[in-house]
Amino acid sequence: MRGMDQAQARSWLGTALAEARTGLAEGGIPIGAALYGADGTLLGRGHNRRVQDDDPSMHAETAAFRDAGRQRTYRGTTMVTTLSPCWYCSGLVRQFGISRVVVGEAATFHGGHDWLAEHGVEILLLDDPECTEMMRDFIKRNPALWNEDIGD
Amino acid sequence: MRGMDQAQARSWLGTALAEARTGLAEGGIPIGAALYGADGTLLGRGHNRRVQDDDPSMHAETAAFRDAGRQRTYRGTTMVTTLSPCWYCSGLVRQFGISRVVVGEAATFHGGHDWLAEHGVEILLLDDPECTEMMRDFIKRNPALWNEDIGD
Repeated sequence: MRGMDQAQARSWLGTALAEARTGLAEGGIPIGAALYGADGTLLGRGHNRRVQDDDPSMHAETAAFRDAGRQRTYRGTTMVTTLSPCWYCSGLVRQFGISRVVVGEAATFHGGHDWLAEHGVEILLLDDPECTEMMRDFIKRNPALWNEDIGD
Repeated sequence: MRGMDQAQARSWLGTALAEARTGLAEGGIPIGAALYGADGTLLGRGHNRRVQDDDPSMHAETAAFRDAGRQRTYRGTTMVTTLSPCWYCSGLVRQFGISRVVVGEAATFHGGHDWLAEHGVEILLLDDPECTEMMRDFIKRNPALWNEDIGD
């Protein structure tokens, strides 16, 4: 990893994890994300809102991106997410030039983080056991909801 | 083109164009989209809302997708958009398995429609002069806003 240290990444993952836990408590899909600025400021945070708002467009990453409001540039920003980003969210990262993605886990779902790495995005995969356990347990209990969320 | 005829595609593009014109009249970025079901039902429609709602997450395609609400499957659906979809919106199409994309024009912005075609999405590029003219005129008058919208 070039620009950031693991301790900082793990601390930022805590914000995304808190969002995922909030989503779970609301009866939603437990995926959380946060967008940090180049200077380390928290720009936005959010979680998947498919169930809560009946809104299929609000994945965790899009919710955090939206929460950050309009930004002049995304250069130097870091998207932190509890789960490997799907194509929709990977496309978001690539289109807007978000520089880094910290991924909590990719064991339950292998999204587009390799594709992002090929296109110059710095990826840090943390293999966090709490992220994996929360998602594995959720998928086991709610397979239909999970499949709906990833278009399967 | 396999499944759909040009006349139907051009008629559906009219819905997306009407959305783009509404966006322009609101002072926004004139890109519109519509999602049609496998049976030809209009499921959702929308336009870019960056300016109107200060919401960078609402591109035309995401707005139409959101407007359609939760769907059990996107098999057989068609996303119609006045402009070639950016990576964010191309990722949306790929992730949710939207079957077809009708593209008004790709002259002012060449998005991810080739990538979608490589991954099995049926693409119909209409090269519509009204779409091209509206977008070209907008970009000329509002270069900073346009660059913001595509993360440039």
